[in-house]
Amino acid sequence: MAGPLPLHEGISILEPLLGTWTGEGSGEYPTIPTFRFSETVTFGHVGKPFLAYHQATRELDETGEPGRPLHAESGYWRTPELGLAEIVLAHPTGITEVLEGFAAPNSAGETDTLIIDVRSSVIGRTTSAKEVQRTERTFEVTGDTLRYTMRMAAVGQPFQHHLAATLHRA
Amino acid sequence: MAGPLPLHEGISILEPLLGTWTGEGSGEYPTIPTFRFSETVTFGHVGKPFLAYHQATRELDETGEPGRPLHAESGYWRTPELGLAEIVLAHPTGITEVLEGFAAPNSAGETDTLIIDVRSSVIGRTTSAKEVQRTERTFEVTGDTLRYTMRMAAVGQPFQHHLAATLHRA
Repeated sequence: MAGPLPLHEGISILEPLLGTWTGEGSGEYPTIPTFRFSETVTFGHVGKPFLAYHQATRELDETGEPGRPLHAESGYWRTPELGLAEIVLAHPTGITEVLEGFAAPNSAGETDTLIIDVRSSVIGRTTSAKEVQRTERTFEVTGDTLRYTMRMAAVGQPFQHHLAATLHRA
Repeated sequence: MAGPLPLHEGISILEPLLGTWTGEGSGEYPTIPTFRFSETVTFGHVGKPFLAYHQATRELDETGEPGRPLHAESGYWRTPELGLAEIVLAHPTGITEVLEGFAAPNSAGETDTLIIDVRSSVIGRTTSAKEVQRTERTFEVTGDTLRYTMRMAAVGQPFQHHLAATLHRA
């Protein structure tokens, strides 16, 4: 979706996200075995005040070769006001998420970092989907490195760390 | 996303949707001028029991040339049980939808038709999004033609027809 169009000025703070990112991460939760995954994330735009977002992960075994598809999600990122971030997501597991929080640059270190921190305000689910009560995500973009962590309360478990990954701009 | 992988047998009823569709439609609502649009829809899969769905529309003027981007949406389609359909969507307008209903073949005519009819069970919205109270969609796939209609109650208006489009497999 990234094209010759200029990024809408209303989302200029999100510019460091644009492009395709690949890397690896790990996941853990009391109800499942700990797992590693390879991940690809894309952020595109069409000149309007949102980024289109798509993510997909694959199983990563001991050999480091990506295997069968694991999770995927897609949606849109918005910054309706300076400092505010809104993310809407759909998941193939039958879940939708509305996440709200902040997007802010952090220039304290040697390199500028964009931090986006959001938590769920509405979680929707289809009749057949598992229960997800609450989620939070933190993203940090420094140059060509994107790190994120994700925490959730789901299927009756207390709110806790679930995912962490480090991606690099492709 | 459509590849050499066989479609998961749990969603075989959705097979007629696979591929890329393009065409035109029109929209109307009491709060906006009636408009025409060009549309592209893709349905892909990765061998798991869901279809990945993406849709984008563009302005269509009197000359028939596609113009600036209008709406977009992305999400996933599921059929957790024979006859049941679940769709989860995210919209760049800050809206999420969980839609549930049925997917059923209709062999009454000369050509088999797949009908998918869903209505919203959960609608999520970010703080900055407009209010959407209720939505319904009906899709009919006959060979290489996909028709859909969409009805909604939004921004305080009564539930009513909003969109209709006819697409052809590209």
